[in-house]
Amino acid sequence: MKEYRVGILGATGAVGREMMKVLAERKFPISELRPLASVRSVGKKISFEGTEVSVQEATENAFDGLDIVLGAAQNAIAKQFAPAIKAAGAVFVDNSSAFRLNPDVPLVVPEINPEDVALHHGLIANPNCTTIISLVAINGLRKASQIESIIASSYQAVSGAGAAGPIELQDQIHALCCGGPININTFQYQIACNVIPQIGSEAFEGYTSEEMKLQNEGRKIMHLPEMRVSCTCVRVPVMRSHSVSLLVRTKEKISVQKARELIASAPGCRLVDDIANKIYPMPLDTSDQDLVFVGRIRDDLTSDNGLNIWCCGDQVRKGAATNAIQIAELVTAL
Amino acid sequence: MKEYRVGILGATGAVGREMMKVLAERKFPISELRPLASVRSVGKKISFEGTEVSVQEATENAFDGLDIVLGAAQNAIAKQFAPAIKAAGAVFVDNSSAFRLNPDVPLVVPEINPEDVALHHGLIANPNCTTIISLVAINGLRKASQIESIIASSYQAVSGAGAAGPIELQDQIHALCCGGPININTFQYQIACNVIPQIGSEAFEGYTSEEMKLQNEGRKIMHLPEMRVSCTCVRVPVMRSHSVSLLVRTKEKISVQKARELIASAPGCRLVDDIANKIYPMPLDTSDQDLVFVGRIRDDLTSDNGLNIWCCGDQVRKGAATNAIQIAELVTAL
Repeated sequence: MKEYRVGILGATGAVGREMMKVLAERKFPISELRPLASVRSVGKKISFEGTEVSVQEATENAFDGLDIVLGAAQNAIAKQFAPAIKAAGAVFVDNSSAFRLNPDVPLVVPEINPEDVALHHGLIANPNCTTIISLVAINGLRKASQIESIIASSYQAVSGAGAAGPIELQDQIHALCCGGPININTFQYQIACNVIPQIGSEAFEGYTSEEMKLQNEGRKIMHLPEMRVSCTCVRVPVMRSHSVSLLVRTKEKISVQKARELIASAPGCRLVDDIANKIYPMPLDTSDQDLVFVGRIRDDLTSDNGLNIWCCGDQVRKGAATNAIQIAELVTAL
Repeated sequence: MKEYRVGILGATGAVGREMMKVLAERKFPISELRPLASVRSVGKKISFEGTEVSVQEATENAFDGLDIVLGAAQNAIAKQFAPAIKAAGAVFVDNSSAFRLNPDVPLVVPEINPEDVALHHGLIANPNCTTIISLVAINGLRKASQIESIIASSYQAVSGAGAAGPIELQDQIHALCCGGPININTFQYQIACNVIPQIGSEAFEGYTSEEMKLQNEGRKIMHLPEMRVSCTCVRVPVMRSHSVSLLVRTKEKISVQKARELIASAPGCRLVDDIANKIYPMPLDTSDQDLVFVGRIRDDLTSDNGLNIWCCGDQVRKGAATNAIQIAELVTAL
């Protein structure tokens, strides 16, 4: 079996660390793991499959000899090193949003459009976390009808802001409980015991960058250039799993019963839908897992061909690290 | 100036206590305040306008001589005592959901349908908290067009479960911070660092009782029997203010600019809508106040005549106690 030399760009962040965990869990065939980060992390030891691996500095020459680079860094870093990764002959699976809408770059959710991986020119983009979780939840419906529009309100965990997010929420909870100042560095305002209806900055007619991703990335992933999406993204004081309240309108009517069957058999989904017995997806139950949990499926009361759907998924795993490793697995199978 | 003898049924709960606070703040003309509760609270002292008032037992005879009874008790208690309140000749302004959809009972949000108070036969119902907050937020739009449908996802504070809600969240926060068991009594599951997509029990085709209120009560309050509403109600770890993500569809197109003007001048609303400067409603900023705060107004991207709107309001005040006192004020003006 072929083994691969794998680099992680941004190895010390929350997603980078989770990528290493998922690589080990999924027994990705690795001959060399090379964690790369900024100069201030150089020499840090990261544990990988029982050995300690030293973080190296991400420089133009750091990618030599690698087969695959998993990107877990911000847009600017991804843009800075993409040419060097390409020059080194490695395939770059990038979790930043820098290249997602580039027509030459496949944007892939392996449960939805795995075939697009084959179209890559050295760079494959990993979609936005809320987009991945929402689309995996509803993808099964497409066996019955085309999706025409989505109305989404999100309940996004603090992990979406990187490693600093959960630390800030934890610190604020400590301050609320035991006294001390409420320190605000990562989010716009206090997030403990609050919700903040802003993720990202303004991007399009009052919508934030985060809110436009479900439409812009969703169209590309699902090959539905006409799909219309209205999204409201909200940060909530939850550690890791994102939740999304979705209203999905389809071309033909899909009954609740049929929707349940389609979602239950869709890859990457688990149906948990029994309100009478208090069974539905919640962040606490769905963290540290790769499945997207789906429930609260109801007929839309405002249109003929709509379904209300509630879903939860771990933002760091399926929303980022696991999806990227799944893409890397598809790359190795090409 | 005429003064009124006012009873509070359920005086020791969160809403009952807030009602007394609001009566004092608004200088409601009172000659006697009579706090009524179950036998186990009898003799408790409640402070009202500088004096201590003793809680009396709610019995069939406890309403004699009262002009107005403010109901802050559960449905069963409201139903039990409604005949005695009527027999005593008092007007019953009831916050429970027991009578809201009764055709003989006006259901009133004073900013929207104050004229309905005059139709009462001794009983006026106070609407559901999420319904009040959502409808006050969008009522101004009706000057430009009829509202046809609403799609709502709520972010509801723990105060909606009564006095025990905030205590449970506070206790769970303490346990998360300092150790100890996570006790779950009031909510279905742990609410700290979680969100729970169930408020109320199943009522209609997978929708909960809480989720059906915005349609059923909204139709009656707005005199729009055809209005269609799809609602998803979610509990979040926030102490007091409810937030709602609304998509409002109107018969004629209303521009974002026009919507902002209409909402800014609507009674009971404050427009806080400037995403570029991080200005939008949040629970922490809107608690302990009577206004509904409205922002994040955007064109719906999935239809021609829709607007996305985000609103927050204090669930205990405008969502319950203040709205009831406003109704009582209208009663005194009849």
